[in-house]
Amino acid sequence: MRAPTISQVAKEAGISVATVSRVMNQKGAVSPETTQKVLQAIERLGYQPNIWGRNLRRGESQVVLVMVPNVTNPYYAPIIAGAEDTLSAAGYSIMLCITNMDRARRRHYVDLMRNRRADGAILMDISVDDRDMVQLSEEYPLVQCCEYCESAAISHVSIDNFSAAREAVSRLAALGHTRIGYIGAKNSFISTALRHKGYRSALEELSIPLHPGYEDFAGRDYSFSTGVEAAGRLLEQKERPTALFCVSDVLALGALQAARERGLRVPEDLSVVGFDDVEYASMFQPRLTTIRQPCYRMGALAASLLLRQMQGEAGGQAMFLPHEWVSRDSTAPWPLNHTFSVSNDL
Amino acid sequence: MRAPTISQVAKEAGISVATVSRVMNQKGAVSPETTQKVLQAIERLGYQPNIWGRNLRRGESQVVLVMVPNVTNPYYAPIIAGAEDTLSAAGYSIMLCITNMDRARRRHYVDLMRNRRADGAILMDISVDDRDMVQLSEEYPLVQCCEYCESAAISHVSIDNFSAAREAVSRLAALGHTRIGYIGAKNSFISTALRHKGYRSALEELSIPLHPGYEDFAGRDYSFSTGVEAAGRLLEQKERPTALFCVSDVLALGALQAARERGLRVPEDLSVVGFDDVEYASMFQPRLTTIRQPCYRMGALAASLLLRQMQGEAGGQAMFLPHEWVSRDSTAPWPLNHTFSVSNDL
Repeated sequence: MRAPTISQVAKEAGISVATVSRVMNQKGAVSPETTQKVLQAIERLGYQPNIWGRNLRRGESQVVLVMVPNVTNPYYAPIIAGAEDTLSAAGYSIMLCITNMDRARRRHYVDLMRNRRADGAILMDISVDDRDMVQLSEEYPLVQCCEYCESAAISHVSIDNFSAAREAVSRLAALGHTRIGYIGAKNSFISTALRHKGYRSALEELSIPLHPGYEDFAGRDYSFSTGVEAAGRLLEQKERPTALFCVSDVLALGALQAARERGLRVPEDLSVVGFDDVEYASMFQPRLTTIRQPCYRMGALAASLLLRQMQGEAGGQAMFLPHEWVSRDSTAPWPLNHTFSVSNDL
Repeated sequence: MRAPTISQVAKEAGISVATVSRVMNQKGAVSPETTQKVLQAIERLGYQPNIWGRNLRRGESQVVLVMVPNVTNPYYAPIIAGAEDTLSAAGYSIMLCITNMDRARRRHYVDLMRNRRADGAILMDISVDDRDMVQLSEEYPLVQCCEYCESAAISHVSIDNFSAAREAVSRLAALGHTRIGYIGAKNSFISTALRHKGYRSALEELSIPLHPGYEDFAGRDYSFSTGVEAAGRLLEQKERPTALFCVSDVLALGALQAARERGLRVPEDLSVVGFDDVEYASMFQPRLTTIRQPCYRMGALAASLLLRQMQGEAGGQAMFLPHEWVSRDSTAPWPLNHTFSVSNDL
């Protein structure tokens, strides 16, 4: 069972967290009655002020770990920037830990936290439910960002990956595509799993039969070469897809390359949709149609949740920020002629 | 004055550092005569085994700070990967510190080292000579990577930026270009300054008059939009450059965009050369001609130098790794017709 939190004390006393905090820190004007209520609630619940909050006040650590699987995917940069801006405004520095999705490395970094070298952590590399993490979240301020444990009450920030993937596939279908390929990954990210579910769900709703040969689970990582190879396999099929939905922009850029290598024009012969809207998605020719994640805001929000936990609030919030369909030059109606004649009729 | 180092002990004793290390650690077969020589040299110099070496043996910290200006430039990713692979093989974890080139942030991270939260540091954000850093390097194991203090004896790893820039400009001149523009930056990186010197030096050697209007110092950072704007200014000139040498690939990709916006074909109407060979330089169309830096090896070498310092060796080594001219699709002879007729004559 979790130790009682400052939020529970506030609830028990029937007053705000801010007031409880003022009583505990003996700062600001609080009536004797309110002080009494707070002290009684603290006693009833057996509440002990959070050790991390104390460290904060004593200025002992002021470091937050930010764990990422890698820094080669440009997706992480704006998230890290958002977290850092928010944390540094509150007097914290971040230390970025690259885990390479390796359990031993991750554990090593967690030990740094146990040894009081950091006050809390934002985790971006843990997707599957992980007993260690759940246990850790009972002891230390933790927030997950992008990836999260579905069954656990760890605070997390992400978009609704299922709905975003459904929207991407529905948009392609609305353009006339029925042969829609999927390029995924063999990783354990919940985001990848939800995007795959969203792809299948959209096909089902649209009554487009699932073609197993149109699903390619590429590699473990999201790399350009993985995208080239996966798209190559899909495009070599007898009846090739006319559109590809890729679970990351980097995979989609690989798909553009695979199309070029086969003399296929994008978007005339093939539509390609990415995911994330990384910085260079709009630098390429054709500029990539994609699902934009509000990465900077996700990082900033994860940092805010963590700061609140470090000041004694309870964790367990699930925050979903809105995604955005960004239509650029890599998608077009199918078949193109048909649509032209339609638009001529208007 | 620097405290005597294990290297000086080795020199004084007239034997190798490895042997001195064996004597000090009482490991391996060493003759009594040699042991005697080492002990005498240690006494003469007043040598004290390095505190960091002791920490290493006691397993006290095992963390190395890696300071980068940002993670948004993909240039840093393979350097960090090289450093991490080398350090983790030696039992170290890295903590990546994003300084945003801010002195206060950098100082904060340095304090972490002073507080023994890290054993040493690889610095990638410090370019100008910096008294703080020089002093720090007397006390802690430090290696600079990419950027370095020219006047200080801090170990560093980089390419020869001056020669690399000279080569790029000379290659463009060899293709027939004489109107060669320069896109630089207003930062304090020594690499930027040396590339600019190399540009000017090549022009001088080739007796191409310097055209002040062909030099654009863009912004402080290397961003795509900065490259678009800088190239835009150069291309709007009455007699526009026929080739652009950019001090980073990201700026060069911006230059490609500026050319597209003006209906200029690359490489037919304009040659563009980048610098670094970041991962996506070869994903673009046209694939970018650039100077390749051996980033992974630079990171790995910086880590090796740091490990040796942490085991007691002296710092102060300057290591320059070879760069490589990578000719792709963004450069062509000038004027193109003239060259065709020449090749027809062959």
